[in-house]
Amino acid sequence: MSTPTYPKMAVVGCGLIGSSVIRGARAAGAVGAVAVADASVVARQRIAELGFADSVTGDVAEAVKDADLVVFAVPVMAMDEAAKAAAGAFKPGCTITDVGSVKGAPAEAMAAHAPQSCFVIPGHPIAGTEQSGPDAGFAELFHNRWTILTPQARTDADYQAAVERLTEFWTRLGANVELMDEKHHDLVLAVTSHLPHLIAYNIVGTAADLEGVTRGEVMKYSAGGFRDFTRIAASDPTMWRDVFLANKDAVLEILGRFTEDLQALSRAIRWGEGDKLFELFSRTRDIRRGIIAAGQETAEANFGRDHRAP
Amino acid sequence: MSTPTYPKMAVVGCGLIGSSVIRGARAAGAVGAVAVADASVVARQRIAELGFADSVTGDVAEAVKDADLVVFAVPVMAMDEAAKAAAGAFKPGCTITDVGSVKGAPAEAMAAHAPQSCFVIPGHPIAGTEQSGPDAGFAELFHNRWTILTPQARTDADYQAAVERLTEFWTRLGANVELMDEKHHDLVLAVTSHLPHLIAYNIVGTAADLEGVTRGEVMKYSAGGFRDFTRIAASDPTMWRDVFLANKDAVLEILGRFTEDLQALSRAIRWGEGDKLFELFSRTRDIRRGIIAAGQETAEANFGRDHRAP
Repeated sequence: MSTPTYPKMAVVGCGLIGSSVIRGARAAGAVGAVAVADASVVARQRIAELGFADSVTGDVAEAVKDADLVVFAVPVMAMDEAAKAAAGAFKPGCTITDVGSVKGAPAEAMAAHAPQSCFVIPGHPIAGTEQSGPDAGFAELFHNRWTILTPQARTDADYQAAVERLTEFWTRLGANVELMDEKHHDLVLAVTSHLPHLIAYNIVGTAADLEGVTRGEVMKYSAGGFRDFTRIAASDPTMWRDVFLANKDAVLEILGRFTEDLQALSRAIRWGEGDKLFELFSRTRDIRRGIIAAGQETAEANFGRDHRAP
Repeated sequence: MSTPTYPKMAVVGCGLIGSSVIRGARAAGAVGAVAVADASVVARQRIAELGFADSVTGDVAEAVKDADLVVFAVPVMAMDEAAKAAAGAFKPGCTITDVGSVKGAPAEAMAAHAPQSCFVIPGHPIAGTEQSGPDAGFAELFHNRWTILTPQARTDADYQAAVERLTEFWTRLGANVELMDEKHHDLVLAVTSHLPHLIAYNIVGTAADLEGVTRGEVMKYSAGGFRDFTRIAASDPTMWRDVFLANKDAVLEILGRFTEDLQALSRAIRWGEGDKLFELFSRTRDIRRGIIAAGQETAEANFGRDHRAP
């Protein structure tokens, strides 16, 4: 595995995910040279200091011009502008992908601005932390996580080969790769990622705005459960605003079901229907066991965050 | 601190919290002898094997009869029966407390069955894990966590002394102690603990019941946020059923506010009001920073559960 999968990679947008892709690709020897484009002057300065890229620029066309793989790692609603800025500069035959949590809109943006000779393969690594920016990234972020690719409806051998090559790239970064229809991706992620973030943001907002209970009390007594929600509610606001705007239909559909279920639970509490509560509360344990068995969660109590002696 | 705060402690109900109280008290030398009463034959056998109690019985009266401190660590709706079983056997002048997540109903139950000479001081350590049973407990569970005591409206010196003694006990177990009105406790905990559990149980239930997305997919792609919710949704079903039945009014009040806020958020998504989303998503970060500053949460990414190299 000493030959790079791509001689040169360009990463457009170098935050938590972009910088983790670079670090992971470097660690695995999956790329030769790395060019970065980032719109923020402050971020560019920091990326230069961190030293993981061969070049850093504010000019998207400059970064992508001789790249064999172009990874767009910008917020979903910024995809169209970023792809447009790269439009005339893509190297013929290059692979163009992204890491967005929504696949519909970014896939359209990339397809609209890519030349015929290029291979557009939208992607999404299901990994992250609540932290943001180029310093937050790390090479192991994708280890044992899933990366979903949502290939276009093309059956030609060149495109298939490009999909295999991108699969090899992600595999070298430690990820498991799955191919999926883009609409199905957006529904699955609405459940496993978008709704959880929405609920977490909402409950933290509700708790912050109460009369009768101070913010200090909410913080002091948060170990009773509340603190678990604050982690994902500390995620990047721009990224998440864009996710909800771009995946509106699936999010509203799943949110509708969640709200119905919550109303039923509320009614069971009001009428003292203990059996209904018990039945739900028993059933949900199995899901966690399944997630642990699937290697996507630690089995240690409290996520292992207490580091207690065994 | 080599003298025990209480020569003998009886613990009624020996699950996660009961067994952690015993282990913590033993480790700190805060008690001399320990008697355990537990209704489950299986649990009693396991407690005897674990060897942290001097005696284990199914008979509550037997366990409490010469104890200086009686700790009820049973589900909230089982408090009345447990206190009733102990009623004739309490040692004169002993302190009677509990660890329930709701304070109204348990406080009434203890007051109804305690003799005049005893000191009833309801309590609640804000600590726990998603695991249950006598094996799940550990001595450090209360370290740097808050224990709330909700003393009765008594101003006599003996009662004040008993409150100070119980405060010393919890302090020796590593907890910070706060005194609070019982109604206020039930409102604060509805926000910081009960609503988070309800929401977590609900979202896990919603995700399990979807058509179109399989449970396998929910588990595989849970690292996008969903897995954070499954931790507290794996908590003891009996305990949590009882919490919602016993703290109905406060939970429904807070749930009402949460639902209103969620409807507003839903509307903002439907109408594409990105600014409203961004404003909320930015504000919630501060709460997490406050919780970390208050020592109630780890600052490490992903709760530190990924154990990545620095």
